[in-house]
Parts: sequence; C-alpha cells; structure tokens
Amino acid sequence: VSGVTIGVDVGGTTVAAGLVSADGRVLEHVQAPTHERGAGTALETIEELLDRLRDGARARGVAVTGVGLGIPGTVDAERGVVGVDVHYAPELAGVPLAARLGPRVGVPVFVDNDVNALALGEWMFGLGRGARSLVVLAAGTGLGGGIVLEGRLVRGRVGVAGELGHAPVKFDGRPCWCGGRGCLAVYASGRGIAEAAQRRIAGRADAALLRAAGGDPSGITAPLVFGSAAGGDPDAVAVVEEACRALGAMIGTIVNGLNPEVVVVTGGVAAAYAALEASVREAAARHAFAAALAQTRIAIVPGDKRTSLRGAAALAFYEAAERAR
Amino acid sequence: VSGVTIGVDVGGTTVAAGLVSADGRVLEHVQAPTHERGAGTALETIEELLDRLRDGARARGVAVTGVGLGIPGTVDAERGVVGVDVHYAPELAGVPLAARLGPRVGVPVFVDNDVNALALGEWMFGLGRGARSLVVLAAGTGLGGGIVLEGRLVRGRVGVAGELGHAPVKFDGRPCWCGGRGCLAVYASGRGIAEAAQRRIAGRADAALLRAAGGDPSGITAPLVFGSAAGGDPDAVAVVEEACRALGAMIGTIVNGLNPEVVVVTGGVAAAYAALEASVREAAARHAFAAALAQTRIAIVPGDKRTSLRGAAALAFYEAAERAR
Repeated sequence: VSGVTIGVDVGGTTVAAGLVSADGRVLEHVQAPTHERGAGTALETIEELLDRLRDGARARGVAVTGVGLGIPGTVDAERGVVGVDVHYAPELAGVPLAARLGPRVGVPVFVDNDVNALALGEWMFGLGRGARSLVVLAAGTGLGGGIVLEGRLVRGRVGVAGELGHAPVKFDGRPCWCGGRGCLAVYASGRGIAEAAQRRIAGRADAALLRAAGGDPSGITAPLVFGSAAGGDPDAVAVVEEACRALGAMIGTIVNGLNPEVVVVTGGVAAAYAALEASVREAAARHAFAAALAQTRIAIVPGDKRTSLRGAAALAFYEAAERAR
Repeated sequence: VSGVTIGVDVGGTTVAAGLVSADGRVLEHVQAPTHERGAGTALETIEELLDRLRDGARARGVAVTGVGLGIPGTVDAERGVVGVDVHYAPELAGVPLAARLGPRVGVPVFVDNDVNALALGEWMFGLGRGARSLVVLAAGTGLGGGIVLEGRLVRGRVGVAGELGHAPVKFDGRPCWCGGRGCLAVYASGRGIAEAAQRRIAGRADAALLRAAGGDPSGITAPLVFGSAAGGDPDAVAVVEEACRALGAMIGTIVNGLNPEVVVVTGGVAAAYAALEASVREAAARHAFAAALAQTRIAIVPGDKRTSLRGAAALAFYEAAERAR
C-alpha cells in the first residue's frame, strides 16, 4: 500500500472525489452535481472530477496509483460493472465503468458498492484499523452493509453480500419496498422509520406527529420522528423504540453469526442512533451471546464526506494489496 | 493436502472416529460410548479410539498426518481448547485438548465446533466442493451453523461465528433457552419445534398431538410433530409451517447478507425439511433477492456418520493447508 489514490463517491445528487494518501488522509477534494450537464451525464461528471484531481496530484508532485469508485446498488466488482439497480443514475447501469475510466486515467479503476467501500475505509483507516474483521451498517434513507472478515471484503457470489438492510429481522414482519418482508430497513432506515410513523398515525388528525409535519403526512420524516421521540411524543417513541430493537437484533445476528471484532453503525441516521446508543446496546444484548458481545467493539458514528472518500479510495488500496498477495 | 487424517466427532452419547483419505473417503471408523468407563471419561474414550485408528493406519501402511476433532459448543480453535458450554461432557470444558492429545498421537491435533467441521467437510469434499463460499445450517435437537467465505472458515473474534441458530429471525419473538429472543432455533430446531407444539396444545386435552404422544406432553417430539403435520393435523401443520418460514428467513439473511454459492441444510431434522423443501424454498424467496437466490445452490440433506467424520478430518486437512499458505 503506497502512493496516492483517488476515491470517488457517487450519490444521487452529488459526485465527490478526493485525493487520498496511503494513510487515509483526504489531501484534496472536489465535487459536482451528479447530472451537472443534465440528465444522463453522471459519467461525464465523474470524468471531469477525475481530471481535476489528476491535475491536483500533478501540482503536488504525487503519483496516482489507482482509482476507487463507490456507488449505491449491486456492483460486479470483478468486471467493474454497476448493476441495474442504480436508480438515480440509470445511465450508469450496465456500464463497464472500470474499463471506461481506466484508459482515461491511466491507472487501474475499481468499482464497488458504496457501503462495501465504506467498510474497507473503516477497516484500513478508521474504526476497524488493525482488526481482522468488521461489519458496517450504514443507515440513511435506506440501509446498507459491508463486511470484512479474516482480512477480506465479503462480496459474495453475485456481489450482493453485505445487504444486511434487506435481511429479515422479523420473518412475519411488514412488507419491504425491496419485495421482501420484515427487512431491517423496514424498521431502522430513514425511509422505514418515516413510513412506520405515517402508518401509525394514519386516520388520526390530532396526532402530534401530523401537526409537527404541518398536517401533511408525507412531511413526517425520520429526523422529525427522532426529534418528536426525544420530546416524548408516544407515537414517535414507539416507532423509534422499534427501530432500536430491530437494529439491536441485527447486531445480535452479526455478533452471533459472524463474531467480528468491530461493528460500526454509520450513515445519515447514525447521529440519531448515537443519541439512543443505550437502547441499541440493550437491544443487542437481548440477542447476542454475552461473551461474544463483550469482545465486540460497537461504534455508532455519523459518517461524513471524508469517510466516504476515504472508503472509495480504500477500494483501490485494497485491490492493489490483494493483487500483490 | 495429502496423507490420511483422523476425524473425531464427539457427541453426547457416542464418540466416533474415522481414518479419512485426502479425497474425503472414510477408510475405517470406530466408535464408543462417550463415557464408556463412567462419568468424566470422555477424554480416555477419545484417546482409546485414536489408538485403535493409529493401529489401523499402521496395518494399512498409511501415515496419519493430523487429527481433527469436532465437538458441539464454542471452541477456541487457535489454542485447541473447548469452551465451558460443552454440557454433556463437562470434564472437557477448558481442557487444552489439542495440547493433551497431540503428544500422544505425534501429529498436530485441531479442535473446532462440530458444525464448523461439517462446513469444512462439505466445502472440501461434499456439496460445496469447488465453491468459494458455503454456509451450513445443521438442525438437530439444537441448530448450529458453519460459514466458509472466500475459501476461509469464519471463526470470529472468540470462536462464536456461525451460531446462526441463535441469530434472531424475529426481534420480538419468543424467548430462547440461550437467553436470547426470537432465535432461529426457537422455531426451527428439534427442541424448538417440540416446545412450540407443546405450548400450542397446552390445556387442550383433546388435541390430536397430545393423543399421539400417549397423553404425555413431553412425548411430543419434533419427529411426532413432522409426522402429524404430514397427516394433516392443523396444530402440527401450523408449527411446521412456522418452522419453514423461520428457516426460509434465515436462508434469506444468508443469501442477502453473505451471498454464498452454496447453502446446505443438514442434521437430524433435515430429512423432515427435505420433505418440505418447496415450503422452505418458498419462504426463502419471500426474503432473498431473486437474482442472488437464483445463483445460490441450496441443498437440504440429512447428514450421517460419514459426513461428520469427514468434517472432523477436514479440520486437519484445512489447517495443514492454511499453515502451508
């Protein structure tokens, strides 16, 4: 692991890219709207940001040895092709991104799911540094996961591995938007929390949550629910408690099933969970073996742009190390 | 991977040991009651069986290169020490088995959880041969698991990894004898199925299940429940359907979370599940991503003594290969 890599984090509204050192520091970063030039221009946006950072590297006199690109959805990492479930940038679905971008930048390009990238970043440079195993749960609008075991990123047969947001925590639970049932995301993601609250107060015009949302049920968002729960609203408290119990159950599954050294809960909703850490830990203790849980480092930390870029860059460092094995 | 190893499978009533070739064939096997010489004699039983098989190997003119020992419970595989949860042979708890047996047999001895051993056996010699990843669920009285990912057995931080029987499939489900809640074992293990049926018919003297058990609730066993369900008894059908749904949910968690090439359901209850394969697969399809499930080979197969011995022996072959890396 040496040299500098570029990490690219592709989101629905913004593409960010950063020049990342071999010890995980973001030396410089740039960003732009994903579709800066209009619909279907995500690839051009990525290319332009890569050009700018290569200029930046040249100005610093450092050599870029690889590019890592993290993107939500299923990715065929071996071929560097994004799956068909990249809804917000459909023009990228099926595009051999690695092969398209590689010749332009002149160094190897690696593509993977954004939470897989995040897991590598935490493992190589962050909360899991020095550990042999770590699992990341990233709760935002949706809920993704990334798994590093015995020093290897677990990608699985078709690149699906790590999708713990769509693993059931209740086999006879509510239907999920993924087509499944009782998925963790139904209870513990931002979308799941908002929908649970909306369902709970349906038909009750006097519900405090509805008033807080200005009378519009669709204005009941996860932040509003967390805020109302902190204020003691019983509907919000019930939804948030269920979210914590579901999240704790998944931590129990992770601890008993995979027994990693480190579990990181991060993402947009993580700040809210951090304030509820005691509830989440209590729920995990209801399910995980005590001896194993006691040896698991659990961290609930909001992520930021830096951790995303570091994660994407970690893809390139990781793959270079894998190829050198 | 070469030479012949000895696999030892330690059970509550019987210890079995087999001479296993490098291609996974059991050349010869012996067995004895675990406590042949009375309480607390499991270690002596193991030693005697090892002596007999070493004589057998000598007679065949083959060299024994290692011993693998599989035992239910948590095992510190690195130190070869059995955990404190080996209830049926408590004299083994905390005993450094590998260090005790190694000098006697003159070759390395490796100890691990019996289902971890089974998973290695299926991966090296059985249903997962040639695959990079496989998960085994072994449903008997209890329910254990074993996980091989990217060609490595997943043991975890303290040797707990693979305990998928005590991962929750229902975060607000019934309490489990492990102290957890909503564990897979509560719904889908032999003990869980028997207890669910007993609970279901409690207070109903006319329940067909109770009559079938001769009027004694404790006579309601998992085989009785499966048999009565096949005969159409509604109570038994409900319990068995719940078991299939819980098992299917765990397969969903495995497919979406780890996305292995192969999932094997085995153990004493597996013959009953094999007859219900359509229900289990249907339940899995309710939770797993279709694209991933379609690429997962799922096999429901009753195990036998041969697969257990082959698994224990695989421990020794696997560790030899790991050390040669």
